[in-house]
Amino acid sequence: MGKMLTLGEIMLRLSTTVGERVASSNQFFAHYGGGEANVAISLANFGHTVAFASKIPENALGDGVKQHLQRYGVECRYLLRGGNRLGTYYVETGIGERAAQVVYDRKGSSFAEMTKSEWPTEMFEGIDIFHISGITPALSKNWQQTLIELVQAAKQAGAKISLDINFRGKLWTTDEAKQYLKQILPYVDFCSAGKLDAQVFMDIPAPDKETDDRYYYDQMNQLYPNIELFYGTHRKVISASHNILTGRLWHQGNYVVSQSHIIDPIIDRVGGGDAFAAGVLHGIANQSSDQELIAFATAASALKHTVHGDCNLFSATEINDFIKNGSGKIVR
Amino acid sequence: MGKMLTLGEIMLRLSTTVGERVASSNQFFAHYGGGEANVAISLANFGHTVAFASKIPENALGDGVKQHLQRYGVECRYLLRGGNRLGTYYVETGIGERAAQVVYDRKGSSFAEMTKSEWPTEMFEGIDIFHISGITPALSKNWQQTLIELVQAAKQAGAKISLDINFRGKLWTTDEAKQYLKQILPYVDFCSAGKLDAQVFMDIPAPDKETDDRYYYDQMNQLYPNIELFYGTHRKVISASHNILTGRLWHQGNYVVSQSHIIDPIIDRVGGGDAFAAGVLHGIANQSSDQELIAFATAASALKHTVHGDCNLFSATEINDFIKNGSGKIVR
Amino acid sequence: MGKMLTLGEIMLRLSTTVGERVASSNQFFAHYGGGEANVAISLANFGHTVAFASKIPENALGDGVKQHLQRYGVECRYLLRGGNRLGTYYVETGIGERAAQVVYDRKGSSFAEMTKSEWPTEMFEGIDIFHISGITPALSKNWQQTLIELVQAAKQAGAKISLDINFRGKLWTTDEAKQYLKQILPYVDFCSAGKLDAQVFMDIPAPDKETDDRYYYDQMNQLYPNIELFYGTHRKVISASHNILTGRLWHQGNYVVSQSHIIDPIIDRVGGGDAFAAGVLHGIANQSSDQELIAFATAASALKHTVHGDCNLFSATEINDFIKNGSGKIVR
Amino acid sequence: MGKMLTLGEIMLRLSTTVGERVASSNQFFAHYGGGEANVAISLANFGHTVAFASKIPENALGDGVKQHLQRYGVECRYLLRGGNRLGTYYVETGIGERAAQVVYDRKGSSFAEMTKSEWPTEMFEGIDIFHISGITPALSKNWQQTLIELVQAAKQAGAKISLDINFRGKLWTTDEAKQYLKQILPYVDFCSAGKLDAQVFMDIPAPDKETDDRYYYDQMNQLYPNIELFYGTHRKVISASHNILTGRLWHQGNYVVSQSHIIDPIIDRVGGGDAFAAGVLHGIANQSSDQELIAFATAASALKHTVHGDCNLFSATEINDFIKNGSGKIVR
Amino acid sequence: MGKMLTLGEIMLRLSTTVGERVASSNQFFAHYGGGEANVAISLANFGHTVAFASKIPENALGDGVKQHLQRYGVECRYLLRGGNRLGTYYVETGIGERAAQVVYDRKGSSFAEMTKSEWPTEMFEGIDIFHISGITPALSKNWQQTLIELVQAAKQAGAKISLDINFRGKLWTTDEAKQYLKQILPYVDFCSAGKLDAQVFMDIPAPDKETDDRYYYDQMNQLYPNIELFYGTHRKVISASHNILTGRLWHQGNYVVSQSHIIDPIIDRVGGGDAFAAGVLHGIANQSSDQELIAFATAASALKHTVHGDCNLFSATEINDFIKNGSGKIVR
Amino acid sequence: MGKMLTLGEIMLRLSTTVGERVASSNQFFAHYGGGEANVAISLANFGHTVAFASKIPENALGDGVKQHLQRYGVECRYLLRGGNRLGTYYVETGIGERAAQVVYDRKGSSFAEMTKSEWPTEMFEGIDIFHISGITPALSKNWQQTLIELVQAAKQAGAKISLDINFRGKLWTTDEAKQYLKQILPYVDFCSAGKLDAQVFMDIPAPDKETDDRYYYDQMNQLYPNIELFYGTHRKVISASHNILTGRLWHQGNYVVSQSHIIDPIIDRVGGGDAFAAGVLHGIANQSSDQELIAFATAASALKHTVHGDCNLFSATEINDFIKNGSGKIVR
Repeated sequence: MGKMLTLGEIMLRLSTTVGERVASSNQFFAHYGGGEANVAISLANFGHTVAFASKIPENALGDGVKQHLQRYGVECRYLLRGGNRLGTYYVETGIGERAAQVVYDRKGSSFAEMTKSEWPTEMFEGIDIFHISGITPALSKNWQQTLIELVQAAKQAGAKISLDINFRGKLWTTDEAKQYLKQILPYVDFCSAGKLDAQVFMDIPAPDKETDDRYYYDQMNQLYPNIELFYGTHRKVISASHNILTGRLWHQGNYVVSQSHIIDPIIDRVGGGDAFAAGVLHGIANQSSDQELIAFATAASALKHTVHGDCNLFSATEINDFIKNGSGKIVR
Repeated sequence: MGKMLTLGEIMLRLSTTVGERVASSNQFFAHYGGGEANVAISLANFGHTVAFASKIPENALGDGVKQHLQRYGVECRYLLRGGNRLGTYYVETGIGERAAQVVYDRKGSSFAEMTKSEWPTEMFEGIDIFHISGITPALSKNWQQTLIELVQAAKQAGAKISLDINFRGKLWTTDEAKQYLKQILPYVDFCSAGKLDAQVFMDIPAPDKETDDRYYYDQMNQLYPNIELFYGTHRKVISASHNILTGRLWHQGNYVVSQSHIIDPIIDRVGGGDAFAAGVLHGIANQSSDQELIAFATAASALKHTVHGDCNLFSATEINDFIKNGSGKIVR
Repeated sequence: MGKMLTLGEIMLRLSTTVGERVASSNQFFAHYGGGEANVAISLANFGHTVAFASKIPENALGDGVKQHLQRYGVECRYLLRGGNRLGTYYVETGIGERAAQVVYDRKGSSFAEMTKSEWPTEMFEGIDIFHISGITPALSKNWQQTLIELVQAAKQAGAKISLDINFRGKLWTTDEAKQYLKQILPYVDFCSAGKLDAQVFMDIPAPDKETDDRYYYDQMNQLYPNIELFYGTHRKVISASHNILTGRLWHQGNYVVSQSHIIDPIIDRVGGGDAFAAGVLHGIANQSSDQELIAFATAASALKHTVHGDCNLFSATEINDFIKNGSGKIVR
Repeated sequence: MGKMLTLGEIMLRLSTTVGERVASSNQFFAHYGGGEANVAISLANFGHTVAFASKIPENALGDGVKQHLQRYGVECRYLLRGGNRLGTYYVETGIGERAAQVVYDRKGSSFAEMTKSEWPTEMFEGIDIFHISGITPALSKNWQQTLIELVQAAKQAGAKISLDINFRGKLWTTDEAKQYLKQILPYVDFCSAGKLDAQVFMDIPAPDKETDDRYYYDQMNQLYPNIELFYGTHRKVISASHNILTGRLWHQGNYVVSQSHIIDPIIDRVGGGDAFAAGVLHGIANQSSDQELIAFATAASALKHTVHGDCNLFSATEINDFIKNGSGKIVR
Repeated sequence: MGKMLTLGEIMLRLSTTVGERVASSNQFFAHYGGGEANVAISLANFGHTVAFASKIPENALGDGVKQHLQRYGVECRYLLRGGNRLGTYYVETGIGERAAQVVYDRKGSSFAEMTKSEWPTEMFEGIDIFHISGITPALSKNWQQTLIELVQAAKQAGAKISLDINFRGKLWTTDEAKQYLKQILPYVDFCSAGKLDAQVFMDIPAPDKETDDRYYYDQMNQLYPNIELFYGTHRKVISASHNILTGRLWHQGNYVVSQSHIIDPIIDRVGGGDAFAAGVLHGIANQSSDQELIAFATAASALKHTVHGDCNLFSATEINDFIKNGSGKIVR
Repeated sequence: MGKMLTLGEIMLRLSTTVGERVASSNQFFAHYGGGEANVAISLANFGHTVAFASKIPENALGDGVKQHLQRYGVECRYLLRGGNRLGTYYVETGIGERAAQVVYDRKGSSFAEMTKSEWPTEMFEGIDIFHISGITPALSKNWQQTLIELVQAAKQAGAKISLDINFRGKLWTTDEAKQYLKQILPYVDFCSAGKLDAQVFMDIPAPDKETDDRYYYDQMNQLYPNIELFYGTHRKVISASHNILTGRLWHQGNYVVSQSHIIDPIIDRVGGGDAFAAGVLHGIANQSSDQELIAFATAASALKHTVHGDCNLFSATEINDFIKNGSGKIVR
């Protein structure tokens, strides 16, 4: 069991009932979530000691965030209070052929408006893994600078760095992201990335003949030999209600692929990638074999799709039982 | 963008939650709808100027109907108030192998009891398309007479006539319908009809060898050369939750078929045909190509199946984006 | 139409909304159910005169049980009141790959704690079929003794005995069940059992080459020639939301198999087997042909999966219409 | 404990959530109820043998009615099936100063359209009390004739007649009611009536000086000496959410008044009078003292106001405990 | 019936279920509202021709605003689309002694960020009354300037100006408001104001001996003789669930007070003042007597408190019936 | 701010919607609670470091308990897992004159079945106050012994002992309680008790003339001079929805009474006493004046009645603001 820290923005998600549109909804379901917070909750559910660092407003929605994290045992000592508002977004739940629609209302949030680190230097003491994502530097120039400094401090303190690239085209351009990734990737130990990231952000050309993702991971590793582990999922979208999910792992030259999970119907896919990332970090902390690790992480992500909300509510035991028992059978 | 008028009955639909039976339900969801009203709302959502003419009681349910139509911008000047009651029906929502069950309670409604037109003659002024359905003449002998008179007045005023045959075996016999269609079809310009309509109501025999629907449309056009455009959908019913929908258009001898939409799961199929009809009228008003028209109308119908209620809540832009982006992907 | 009596435990089931976990649920849906009670309700819905015998506490939950049974016309004269509590269990509804999870809280219930029959001897007067299950003797040594006595009294009074083996590994061991079945099976006329029951409880070896279930039924009948009818379903579990169900019947040497029902999505599978058993008893009482009987029973079970709650809410007419009309079509 | 029969119309009530208007509601709560049915359910809950006679359609709403009555143990042998529809009404729940609003949609119901009795003559065999109301003759001329015949048959068979005058100004005029009451009151033994009934329907003038209701009952008894017992409630309406209720009883010259019940807030006042009437009939059947009877009946009515739906869900024991323990204390 | 225009901000209100706190809510009810929009909807419900001018974002929440206004027949021609976001606020519903709590998240809204009028000059053509509030100038310096220009243009076009002072201490200081009111009040014809406004914003000293509000209105009229009509309510707060409301009107020297309405329980007090203002404008447009006007406006406000949402859903007829029939009686 | 420990049973409460009876409910709201757990959560919300010790089963309901406590920041290190079941009870929510009804199903719980302390001896290290209640010794003889030992260990470690007598007549007799209190009261420092406790458990006779509770507290203090602080509330029950609550404190001879809080309507009174006790302990820890302490504790209890669930969700700041601002006013 490891000691982890994740840092990023957490927002309020307001989503419609299935079959209703945002414009005609007279009620919304409320969930708090954000990639790094979701990873923290998963890790806490797996039994790790984990803290989440962020900044949220001093109001009832901020209280809601804190209660949400505490509920699952995430340490909130570094959850700063202050600033103007909690970032918010509205989700019109997708179904069948109709994809989910998102209305963002996240500008000016307490986290996004931070201009420099407000955390104490001892935050990284004893931390084994520091997990962040590419969403944070997309929020502002200040954050690009601040995140580098935090990563440097974390490394200094002996932590490994885990980065989920998670490019969001609504927040910055591919060019901006590309420039920034060049700066931060040299610090990274574990990286969630895929073929598209390789092509777009690292200029790795497609190979002459069709191949699997191992090729891209090998190439990325040549550019950034400091990255010892790459992970990603391949999601085949049959419809908004029906996906097929496969996990991939490249670990010091070894490339493994999980079994494919048929997810039909999908209850809520938000946080599916974060559940996967948390599964990977769990495997790293537990020194699982590559095959076990990818099976666990992909199963965790598949299970996440069967519950409402952003975060994975399953324990490590439950995920391992799920891997063993397979699909849909009741024990009684 | 055109100016349209639709005329017909609008009812209150009371439906159960999925998985509940009418007999043991202690609550019902309420939706107002009727074929012609649904078409009007779709057209308003597509940006057309559209009025709906009907008669509803002077009570709170009548107020509910009016609010429902106004909400989407349908002009309600010709929504008469008076009479005894609003037609009602109960729907036990279907699921999987179990089909929806309907309990009708529509007799004696304000609209059905009308004995002659109560609308002012200027109602048709400036109207490009007057849309009606075969449900109205099925309500009474009076309505059979009145509808012909309205159609004549509309043509007189320069409107094109759009008829959705929409045969309902619970309201009249095929013989009655057949006799009546002979009278009204000579006035029609755009007609929703299919193979069964051709065989049953127009005595068009099946061809010697299996062919597509083009054959029937060609034959129908020979009988009614005034009809310049036929449209219809083919619905393959895998189960009550899973249909495959394909649109068909015959336009002045040109026959086109849309791609097939896999609708799984279905949220609410009521109004699927009306969304299609409205999509066709939109294409006519916008002088879309036949291929664009059928793609749009079928996509509109497919999307309708993903929302609760009788009416299509999507704008023309959203439908075109859906055609472009395909199934189930989120943009963020 | 026959006169039936079923006897067993009835419990309160508290289940989550789909997509919620038990631990984080702030509300539960409540359903009363138990195998023998579910069979009684089905039979009442099919038009039979049927009583349910059990023991429930003298409190509001006991009142709830009684109202539930009376609602569908089950005779409650033999529903004893008293004892400590109503057995309860919590169900975390399964979805897709994730199976339902059950938390039992049934120990010490009024029924389980019974030490001997408290029913009057006239209970069996005029009864055609007495239906019980293998859950009752799994509750206690007392119940093992008492159930044998009740079966003897029922036979004495002229009733046929119907037993659903329904082995529950959380209540007793296979060895205990095996010993007990040896005692009770010689009294049984109609028996719900399958290949696993044959292998585990009757030591019937697998045949040399793969065969259908007829083999096992033939063998079981050789051991217990008193059993004139065996029945069972084969459930292929694609996922917790998607099963394929096939019914099987062995009747005096004749073996028939129903068509397969694709159940997708499943609303609630609890009680699916009871609906099947009730369909079989209905066929027996009505002297249906074997083929009609198995078609009816399997269709009844398939329909049960489409409604919430433990019991089959469909009349015999509705089930026969369903068999005729097939999947998912609306009549209007 | 007595054997009772009640006969009248039962309808579907569709009501809004508190704070919502009918016109803008997207769901309605469904309750089945009618004065005589509500009385039957109360009596069954008090432990009497009671049947309810009516006519309801052969559809899912009719099934719902039957399940509702059976649930509480009301005998449904005389619940005829057939005719066109179930009467319906919509209730916009009142609150504070705003009274409830009702939209009736009851015309043409299976019961109202009956032209003569369709029940077997043995219906009245063994019946101690036959309970009806003034709503039934208000439905049609046919019903006025039929009800007299039924009352005569009941008396013939030895039953006492209980009539709740229950004048409804939306169904007939005071003149029609007055004429009809003259015909039926001579058959009546127990009558729910008050000061207004006395003045309007029996031309009893107000006394010279203000007095209590005893005066009116004395006068009514002089006109109809056959009526041995009059009962009624006085409802002081502070607001739609706050009433004060007092019961009154005149029994063979003895006049008693209950304590006043402060009902604040009111959950659902529909059926409050029926709960009272049933309480009176219970007292009659049990030969309670006048004081006990009126305390019981008024308490029953007060409790009814605290639950949703038309019918009183409390047992005689619970009502007696409520009288003993007084207001609002928990026992634990 | 008059022609009115109201202009101001409209926001999304997200409120909790009664008895839940914002921080622990997992769903919120959504209502759109704003003082001037609420006045427009009331006026439309009273039968007036009314338009609402504002600016809302080009997203699904903006669509929701438009549907909300259209539903009640408010003309939306001047509802501009664009800008960044819709102002939002969260309401923790109050109950009993506990007051409602509000969390504002309204900064940076499309309306607040406007720098000058974007409406066409013909907007005021034919307008009888132009209604605004003191919230708009509190949003920005730009709005202070723009609002004066709009008021000048409205007067130029012949409209009367109605101003609801509605001071919000969270948006600007009393000093800022005071300076601004000096500029705008000389244009105003009808003004919602009270004793506190008189003391704080107009430096009117308290009189030597306690008097009623007539004194303040007389004094305000001396300062601003252009204001022909003042109106206000007095709200006595017994608790968050129980208020007593009295309306006051000063009209060209005549001072009238309404009866007091006991509002218990309160369903939703948001918009109570707007319902009152709309009632006043309705009386002005209809040239009601002062006494009728204040009775109507206060009754309208009292009824508003009995429904969820910001806007008054009652027609003029319903309000007049309510005045006539008094509290809580059902007609049936 | 202090360091506290509370120890006791926590149960699952399943309650009906207002206006529904347990027997006819098809869903229940779920809340976890128990006196000592509720006190712990309040104290955590007030900013204290607080742990809750108990034993709960190793199943999903146990997980639910843990999440509930963690959510509000209660330390769960001493929350043991194991045993058979979680105690449960059903509440039929009271309203108006109708009191809440409780159905207990708590026997055999993991906590009740404990035979001796399973906690480590270091549990009391650094604890300032150890809070328990009279419910725990009512569970079993074992618990009577164990609790004394725990109290001795706590005192040994330097903690003050807080006891809420909380007699429950359904768990033990007054005689048993009386005997036990004699043993435990000598260890107690702070005690929740009232006039009835004084009379029944300590044989303190009523004084010659009517007096206030100071008399009883003086007398109790003479018997147990170790108890430095007594506290209690007086609850005047107008109805199940309307109570008047007053707090009382006796502290080293000083007797103070709070203002009375009118609680109307009551949302949920379960946990009202625990909120009061927590308020008292907060005042003790903060060395508030007696008058401040009793004002705070009573206000905390009054606010608790306005939210669903067993626990007080208000911070110390919110309670102090409530005391300052008084009843029902919104700040905006």
